[in-house]
Amino acid sequence: MGVLGAQGKVGKAICAAVEAAGDLELVAAVDKDDPLTRFTETGTQVVVDFTHPDVVMGNLRFLVDNGIHAVVGTTGFDSARLDEVRGRLSGRPDVGVLIAPNFAIGAVLSMRFAEQAARFFESVEVIELHHPNKADAPSGTAYRTAGIIAEARKQAGSAPVPDATTTELDGARGAEVDGVRVHSVRLAGLVAHQEVLFGTQGETLTIRHDSIDRSSFAPGVLLGVRQIGGRPGLTVGLDPFLDL
Amino acid sequence: MGVLGAQGKVGKAICAAVEAAGDLELVAAVDKDDPLTRFTETGTQVVVDFTHPDVVMGNLRFLVDNGIHAVVGTTGFDSARLDEVRGRLSGRPDVGVLIAPNFAIGAVLSMRFAEQAARFFESVEVIELHHPNKADAPSGTAYRTAGIIAEARKQAGSAPVPDATTTELDGARGAEVDGVRVHSVRLAGLVAHQEVLFGTQGETLTIRHDSIDRSSFAPGVLLGVRQIGGRPGLTVGLDPFLDL
Amino acid sequence: MGVLGAQGKVGKAICAAVEAAGDLELVAAVDKDDPLTRFTETGTQVVVDFTHPDVVMGNLRFLVDNGIHAVVGTTGFDSARLDEVRGRLSGRPDVGVLIAPNFAIGAVLSMRFAEQAARFFESVEVIELHHPNKADAPSGTAYRTAGIIAEARKQAGSAPVPDATTTELDGARGAEVDGVRVHSVRLAGLVAHQEVLFGTQGETLTIRHDSIDRSSFAPGVLLGVRQIGGRPGLTVGLDPFLDL
Amino acid sequence: MGVLGAQGKVGKAICAAVEAAGDLELVAAVDKDDPLTRFTETGTQVVVDFTHPDVVMGNLRFLVDNGIHAVVGTTGFDSARLDEVRGRLSGRPDVGVLIAPNFAIGAVLSMRFAEQAARFFESVEVIELHHPNKADAPSGTAYRTAGIIAEARKQAGSAPVPDATTTELDGARGAEVDGVRVHSVRLAGLVAHQEVLFGTQGETLTIRHDSIDRSSFAPGVLLGVRQIGGRPGLTVGLDPFLDL
Repeated sequence: MGVLGAQGKVGKAICAAVEAAGDLELVAAVDKDDPLTRFTETGTQVVVDFTHPDVVMGNLRFLVDNGIHAVVGTTGFDSARLDEVRGRLSGRPDVGVLIAPNFAIGAVLSMRFAEQAARFFESVEVIELHHPNKADAPSGTAYRTAGIIAEARKQAGSAPVPDATTTELDGARGAEVDGVRVHSVRLAGLVAHQEVLFGTQGETLTIRHDSIDRSSFAPGVLLGVRQIGGRPGLTVGLDPFLDL
Repeated sequence: MGVLGAQGKVGKAICAAVEAAGDLELVAAVDKDDPLTRFTETGTQVVVDFTHPDVVMGNLRFLVDNGIHAVVGTTGFDSARLDEVRGRLSGRPDVGVLIAPNFAIGAVLSMRFAEQAARFFESVEVIELHHPNKADAPSGTAYRTAGIIAEARKQAGSAPVPDATTTELDGARGAEVDGVRVHSVRLAGLVAHQEVLFGTQGETLTIRHDSIDRSSFAPGVLLGVRQIGGRPGLTVGLDPFLDL
Repeated sequence: MGVLGAQGKVGKAICAAVEAAGDLELVAAVDKDDPLTRFTETGTQVVVDFTHPDVVMGNLRFLVDNGIHAVVGTTGFDSARLDEVRGRLSGRPDVGVLIAPNFAIGAVLSMRFAEQAARFFESVEVIELHHPNKADAPSGTAYRTAGIIAEARKQAGSAPVPDATTTELDGARGAEVDGVRVHSVRLAGLVAHQEVLFGTQGETLTIRHDSIDRSSFAPGVLLGVRQIGGRPGLTVGLDPFLDL
Repeated sequence: MGVLGAQGKVGKAICAAVEAAGDLELVAAVDKDDPLTRFTETGTQVVVDFTHPDVVMGNLRFLVDNGIHAVVGTTGFDSARLDEVRGRLSGRPDVGVLIAPNFAIGAVLSMRFAEQAARFFESVEVIELHHPNKADAPSGTAYRTAGIIAEARKQAGSAPVPDATTTELDGARGAEVDGVRVHSVRLAGLVAHQEVLFGTQGETLTIRHDSIDRSSFAPGVLLGVRQIGGRPGLTVGLDPFLDL
């Protein structure tokens, strides 16, 4: 297998994890000044891409056209980009591409459990907590989690969450994503954390994910690398690979 | 529907919840000095039993023989008792009996999520926290949760959880249930709480359930009452009724 | 001692706690339709007032003028009201009045610890979590806690908390109280909870207070009742009585 | 200033922190194969020692005899060793030695707050959570925290913590340190964490410290380095330097 963006923080962690794993071999570590042809020259079968929204589409065109499977953690995929990838793959039905916004298995499980729990509780809120250098609030994961919960509640015909607030200091009740409140904490000493709180009469259920190290992406990426060969076409999100 | 053990703390909460629900009618509230025939006289279709291990088997014989469905939260059911209930039900295949050790939906979901997550993490431990008047440690729910996790790990071929402890003050590392460590905290100001902590390289996932009121049993009991008519035979645990 | 607002939820809990305590005697339980003269008739020495902003000033005038100490949990005291109480007390220097916004000892300790910790950490945020019937956000306790922290940081010459947020969904980063972010969660199944999170390079310190029962006010109120006789004049907040 | 054990994990973090601080200069970084005379040759005024119990006493003899202040994080100091250091210092009353088992300011504050809170609550338990490579359970910090709490309760004449446990699976209730229960969790994905839980009727207070990086020792070590010149003699623990 190969790595694109091999000199980035995540890329380095992936390279280290591949080398630590007994069953995978790193044949090409490529960064922005290296030619993509290194993958074809070395006969690489799967490439992991943690690069940049500006270059990832070009990378994917090259990989798909050359019959190389891709596991992609680069951000910035909207529906237009996903459609473009699907179109490219229609000409190479043997190739698999996995694009996931989050490879931390704990984060993926958190979202799944939140989806399953959503219809059983009157109330739900999301708190995400990150280091103070983060530029966006809420985090992409929190935004998606809230959206998933809102959709599950809608499917189940849940009533709106109860909230008797009449006097609010601006912002106290957080941001609203499809009717679900999301709070963003920024604190030195934290890395990436999220709590989903569900509540009903007399009880609460909390699903908390703590990621304290970029290496937490690694097990999910390796799981993707191992399975992508048997899953042709486009897969969005790591969930289907977990066989829950 | 009817309630057996209607004067007990849980029984009273169930009665109140039934009255608050628009779709159920409480036709018979029976306690230890009242005759069971009150249920047959009033044509009760479903009875909720939160009584005592000494009397619950007699109650169930009466209910099953009279074609009345039962939703049972009384404790003390071992496999011999469950077999006896199954035997009784074989003569009345139209009757449903639900026996569940825990009706708090958050607790049931916690166990289910713990089971699903178990194979993805190297480490797992359970902490349960209760009021200081509790006689047994660990709680029955924590004991069952640990057993469910241990079984899921065994099925997945997980390695034993890592633990380099060589010097231990007696008891510090908790009790061991099938290879899963369980810790019991007893604290004034608490009611009934449980945390399942999963961990792997760089990340942890925590599933926490807090029950601060006996009324937390009510939504699960009512869910059982509403569905038991369509689920003949013996069901152990609320899980199958949640359709996860 | 006596209780004003004896039929309210808090008042009832206070009455029960007094009766459970061996060293205090409840001589007059007064509610809105009872005359205040019941206190003078019975020779009551200390009165606990959990009533309403509309009546509490009149209650205090009566109590102070009659030489009866007061322990007050009623809300709505601004600086004008406090000044009025001080004025009244200037004519009765033997009488003590304790007015506290929060009698839960855990809440008072939380605020004190937050104040002590404030200058050692780069970052701090407050999360308060309450039942969904609460009208104001943030809670009064969270608002005061943030103010105390802000003041301690100002005294120590702390730099502003770091925050690189450039893209925010409206409200995600919470409300700002003197430069300290405060988040308000409203969730069924909760009662009254607060977390103060401090962080600096590589470590965080969290002070969490959970109050699940109105009876949590009782130990602080009784502590006030026992000590007020020896503390003439106006005391605002329970802190001075804790001798930290 | 200088560092002893400069090639160890903690030592390296200390060196990096010194270089990042504007007001301190690293003049000698010494490890086990280097001579101690490097400190005297360079005129080092303060040395930080994170080495090993086998060599730390020899290091301290050299430093004290040469008039160099020491800030020591090496473990293994019992009362005999502390007495020996005191004796050595009696001949050099101008020299300061700070020996602290924990330099993370959050941990030091946690212990102080636990001590202050101890007498106000009926119940208290300690949970410490660490990575699975830790050899001892409970951690030294948890052991000391429990001891401090027990002493504070004894001073206040507190009753024993309530505990109605009659049936216990061996170890479930944790280890007992002077009447305070301590639970040790070992989990992949964790670093070093501790919770002190206090409880009384209707409320709990939790003091939690999370250390996710060895660099969390640095601010406390630098605080010690800056102040040790003005605090001659032996100081045990960082607390006195915090001026709480």
